[in-house]
Amino acid sequence: MRVDGRSPEQLRPVTILTGVSKHAHGSALIEMGETKVLCTATIEDSVPQFLRDTGRGWVTAEYGMLPAASRPRIPREASRGRVAGRTHEIQRLIGRSLRAVTDMTLLGERTVWVDCDVIQADGGTRTASITGAYVALALAFDALQREGVLLAPPLTGSVAAVSVGIVQGEALLDLCYAEDTAAEVDMNFVMTGDGKYVEVQGTAESKPFTRADLDRLADLAWTGIRKLTHMQRKALERA
Amino acid sequence: MRVDGRSPEQLRPVTILTGVSKHAHGSALIEMGETKVLCTATIEDSVPQFLRDTGRGWVTAEYGMLPAASRPRIPREASRGRVAGRTHEIQRLIGRSLRAVTDMTLLGERTVWVDCDVIQADGGTRTASITGAYVALALAFDALQREGVLLAPPLTGSVAAVSVGIVQGEALLDLCYAEDTAAEVDMNFVMTGDGKYVEVQGTAESKPFTRADLDRLADLAWTGIRKLTHMQRKALERA
Amino acid sequence: MRVDGRSPEQLRPVTILTGVSKHAHGSALIEMGETKVLCTATIEDSVPQFLRDTGRGWVTAEYGMLPAASRPRIPREASRGRVAGRTHEIQRLIGRSLRAVTDMTLLGERTVWVDCDVIQADGGTRTASITGAYVALALAFDALQREGVLLAPPLTGSVAAVSVGIVQGEALLDLCYAEDTAAEVDMNFVMTGDGKYVEVQGTAESKPFTRADLDRLADLAWTGIRKLTHMQRKALERA
Amino acid sequence: MRVDGRSPEQLRPVTILTGVSKHAHGSALIEMGETKVLCTATIEDSVPQFLRDTGRGWVTAEYGMLPAASRPRIPREASRGRVAGRTHEIQRLIGRSLRAVTDMTLLGERTVWVDCDVIQADGGTRTASITGAYVALALAFDALQREGVLLAPPLTGSVAAVSVGIVQGEALLDLCYAEDTAAEVDMNFVMTGDGKYVEVQGTAESKPFTRADLDRLADLAWTGIRKLTHMQRKALERA
Amino acid sequence: MRVDGRSPEQLRPVTILTGVSKHAHGSALIEMGETKVLCTATIEDSVPQFLRDTGRGWVTAEYGMLPAASRPRIPREASRGRVAGRTHEIQRLIGRSLRAVTDMTLLGERTVWVDCDVIQADGGTRTASITGAYVALALAFDALQREGVLLAPPLTGSVAAVSVGIVQGEALLDLCYAEDTAAEVDMNFVMTGDGKYVEVQGTAESKPFTRADLDRLADLAWTGIRKLTHMQRKALERA
Amino acid sequence: MRVDGRSPEQLRPVTILTGVSKHAHGSALIEMGETKVLCTATIEDSVPQFLRDTGRGWVTAEYGMLPAASRPRIPREASRGRVAGRTHEIQRLIGRSLRAVTDMTLLGERTVWVDCDVIQADGGTRTASITGAYVALALAFDALQREGVLLAPPLTGSVAAVSVGIVQGEALLDLCYAEDTAAEVDMNFVMTGDGKYVEVQGTAESKPFTRADLDRLADLAWTGIRKLTHMQRKALERA
Repeated sequence: MRVDGRSPEQLRPVTILTGVSKHAHGSALIEMGETKVLCTATIEDSVPQFLRDTGRGWVTAEYGMLPAASRPRIPREASRGRVAGRTHEIQRLIGRSLRAVTDMTLLGERTVWVDCDVIQADGGTRTASITGAYVALALAFDALQREGVLLAPPLTGSVAAVSVGIVQGEALLDLCYAEDTAAEVDMNFVMTGDGKYVEVQGTAESKPFTRADLDRLADLAWTGIRKLTHMQRKALERA
Repeated sequence: MRVDGRSPEQLRPVTILTGVSKHAHGSALIEMGETKVLCTATIEDSVPQFLRDTGRGWVTAEYGMLPAASRPRIPREASRGRVAGRTHEIQRLIGRSLRAVTDMTLLGERTVWVDCDVIQADGGTRTASITGAYVALALAFDALQREGVLLAPPLTGSVAAVSVGIVQGEALLDLCYAEDTAAEVDMNFVMTGDGKYVEVQGTAESKPFTRADLDRLADLAWTGIRKLTHMQRKALERA
Repeated sequence: MRVDGRSPEQLRPVTILTGVSKHAHGSALIEMGETKVLCTATIEDSVPQFLRDTGRGWVTAEYGMLPAASRPRIPREASRGRVAGRTHEIQRLIGRSLRAVTDMTLLGERTVWVDCDVIQADGGTRTASITGAYVALALAFDALQREGVLLAPPLTGSVAAVSVGIVQGEALLDLCYAEDTAAEVDMNFVMTGDGKYVEVQGTAESKPFTRADLDRLADLAWTGIRKLTHMQRKALERA
Repeated sequence: MRVDGRSPEQLRPVTILTGVSKHAHGSALIEMGETKVLCTATIEDSVPQFLRDTGRGWVTAEYGMLPAASRPRIPREASRGRVAGRTHEIQRLIGRSLRAVTDMTLLGERTVWVDCDVIQADGGTRTASITGAYVALALAFDALQREGVLLAPPLTGSVAAVSVGIVQGEALLDLCYAEDTAAEVDMNFVMTGDGKYVEVQGTAESKPFTRADLDRLADLAWTGIRKLTHMQRKALERA
Repeated sequence: MRVDGRSPEQLRPVTILTGVSKHAHGSALIEMGETKVLCTATIEDSVPQFLRDTGRGWVTAEYGMLPAASRPRIPREASRGRVAGRTHEIQRLIGRSLRAVTDMTLLGERTVWVDCDVIQADGGTRTASITGAYVALALAFDALQREGVLLAPPLTGSVAAVSVGIVQGEALLDLCYAEDTAAEVDMNFVMTGDGKYVEVQGTAESKPFTRADLDRLADLAWTGIRKLTHMQRKALERA
Repeated sequence: MRVDGRSPEQLRPVTILTGVSKHAHGSALIEMGETKVLCTATIEDSVPQFLRDTGRGWVTAEYGMLPAASRPRIPREASRGRVAGRTHEIQRLIGRSLRAVTDMTLLGERTVWVDCDVIQADGGTRTASITGAYVALALAFDALQREGVLLAPPLTGSVAAVSVGIVQGEALLDLCYAEDTAAEVDMNFVMTGDGKYVEVQGTAESKPFTRADLDRLADLAWTGIRKLTHMQRKALERA
């Protein structure tokens, strides 16, 4: 029995609310248990230098945490004058994950800025960010198609992410913060809706793990991704 | 008739939702029309260097805007590596306003970090921040009193803020963004619940204003502050 | 009787010396009692990005304090690698004040850099900066008109600034440092030569103030501004 | 046949030279083909704040590239004033990998600074850094044991790393730069000498990959790690 | 005949005005022709970490230029967020020069902050800074002796500096800006009042110079230093 | 007898190894005793703003120390977020020295980036950098001439550098670290192969020095430069 009463292969309650921002082209507020992330996609009519005159677009992501998203309070990166290494890692991961399912030629010379801001944190903020960001991105593309700016949808598939880990010898799906800090092994899987890998990241926090562990965690992850993909589709249909 | 149908001395619809953050000691989500600010108060058991061993506490504020809170998207200050001058000004203003109604001796050697994060902007974000932050601060003090940490409530009164301005020659209460950009004169009043001034800031955006204008704007502001003070009291009673 | 023997509505001795910089287009050294600020205006033949091809110019200000302008010595902002929030606030205030009396179309696509550097501080450095900066700006415009670069003078009026405050219950004009640190209320008025408001900034340092206080302070300020406007005119005539 | 004539499961020629720094406690220059990384381990008698008085030590890593390690030349991070996101990611990875095989209690309250500086880059610099850094770390621990500072060796095992990837549909071991830029999938495995996982990082650069791909890459990686572990042992015996 | 009518071995008109700052412990405004530098010395009752509990003091210098000290205007280092390489070089030079004539044991555990701020530049600002800074330093030490804080004067001699150079084949003393930009060789000599070298810095700007040139320039420098030493003594006597 | 057994006018053993970098256009690893510096020259087909459309090129240098080049370990400048004053000084010195022997018109609109990275430090790193950088630069120019990019060699002569100093009253050539820290006087001479001065920098570390000392040190320096010039020529012939 887990700390919050779930079975090992059970996700926390997930809700994905869309249309939560007046100014962004697409937006989604994803909640996975007590973790809440506001994801927005804003489209700009220009591209970074290295893509000028290539006819291709770009998707980039930024990630932030509100200071009170965690206890103790986290000092604001703006005030500290630098983006932390952990933040860099996460925003690069989100960007790569979204680019993996975007056809940059269909997007054309535009940049999509995806912002994932953690309103409240309880573990799994980077994976929730990816899952929510996909929905915001899809909505932004829908909006541009409706406006006639895009002729075809630039998405080649869907993408979602989930954390898995080994806690006290047992493989668990979707770790909450209490589980995360106790985990011996912590993995994040970013996968397409049809079960392929976009990113696989595993870290032995306190002891190295075996090939059998890796296999068990990959199985669990796919269980979670299937459900999240379903939730994403439902949220997009409702929107 | 104003752009959104209000009369000159009418506030936008105001809602103040409390208890919106699991980790902060006090929190409030204030909405004034389409402007939405999440305000949290987190208490830390230490004080800045200059207050050590004085028995007195400190209230400090930080202000931020989510990148998609406005269109066009606002680059993240963390990414730019520096806090903008405007942000500095606003967070200093919020901090001064809250300190004006806090008895630092009753607070004791503790620091309250007040964070005001603009989720969506439509004018008046700094005044909404102050009005919401007061509620978050009061709730944080209540929580500490219930825990027996504070013996007496450190607040000496309530504080709220509102913008007023002159648009096309007419004095208006609580400017929305469209009015704000067209304003000839823009003023912010921060006042206590019993009608005294904590901060008065007026700027002639396009033409200098007269003593009679100043008087008219001060009258309007007090109309708004009275209503906001009432909303704050109601929100605190509900909490 | 005040700490330096003045009556409540008396300015400190004011001198405005012009032509103090060989390289600037206009310059003034203003002394208000022991406060000394060197103000220069330098004109550059380009404008910020947002004004290109609009035919309009820009006036921007920067403010600094020499490290030994105060005791204890103030660390150099260049060495600390960042401009303090207070400095940002002041230079934005000076810039806005000067722009309020400048016709940007008559200036044409040029930028005026106004630098206010405090050589010695004894309270009221931001208001002295504005009063002196106006003189430097007017002289720079004169120089450009004499060179035939400007066809008409871009100034629409004069601007000056003064501090007022309440110390031990009494309203005082032009606070020196000792008065400033003891003030219950501190206000800065930036006004045109014909008595209109450009900026009004009031802060309750230790206790909120009433409408009657505000009225009394506004009266005092106008007394001071009238005299400063006279000194500015005299300095410009001498130049 | 690969671009440099290797078979798919073949490493590039590997040499590990030890004792290359007069000042570090342990050092190794690792070459994997044309990739050359200088790894040093320096021990300091203090620990970061969060470990004071815990009796436990810390291993931290920094990574850098000489500007001419690549063509075109890479601007120096010191000159740009900030460490790039990629560098942050790599140095965090190296640090975690080394900590996974270090018993911090046996190390005691000391910090080991591991520096990995890329002298010349041709793909796989982060994995070569880990493999070389382990040797430098082991040598530093040996030196401290010989001096009587450490009573027991703090290493719980060995660690090495290798890259694998899919290029034109074929799974390859130890990608050189030309292969890396053409790879559809790029993975890094950090493993202990007895075949357990410390870190697994896989990225679909151009197309998502299947579970079968993951299995094939994991097999290849273990082939490489076994050989690198052997080279590490030989280098340490020679030293 | 030089650009300003001087003979090759003639200094520009030099004036050293003392007591120009109310807050500093010692101050001097030095003018060498059109170059004007405000030098202040402020004493703090603490020392940098590396000198704690050694009984020894420290003299450190900072150098700055007001933006309008030169045409075109020089952007403020505080605004650019970093101290330029040239500034670093100059402030290190001033600090070393002053420390060369200070007995740190007689100073005791105190830090002297010497600030040299260029009000107007016309070549030779770093050498004028040293010459003026010595006077400010001596006055600060005098003040501390009068207050009974210092028992003996910590100065072991006087120090002054001058530039020399080769312009169109001719060796010249004390280059003004026009000469400086045309110089083939540019040297700065920092010397004690009794003719010994503290710093010698020579740079071939456009062509390497011979041993004979070096000798000629050293002769010229000593001519200038003798006169500056005399001016320093006179300024100190007047103070 | 010196600390390492040399006579006063003897250099440490010098080796200059060329062709040590695959990616740079020219490279040299210089060792002077235990001081080891990797020097590379990389050519870029553009020039800084101030040289555009002048037909002239630029040579610029950067200098760095690997963290473990010294004991105790030196924190990485990239991590500290700023280049130290000492580094600025050194890289400006190297750049000026190389530009003194380069004909910028023959180079054409190209920038040569010279990187000097200290692998191991034992005194004299800046002078070794210059001596080695000249070789890297010459090799890069050779390479460009062989490729037909340059029609004539842009070098107008050779340049080398050496340190000299006074230790316990005796003038010594090429100080090692132990001598450097004990030196009363420390000088660096940068000279052309035909004995002219490019840079002369002398500092009295603990006591001012006489004209006779200066003469003696200049003699010693020329002895060293002659030998280093010979080593440079030999290294270039071997390449």
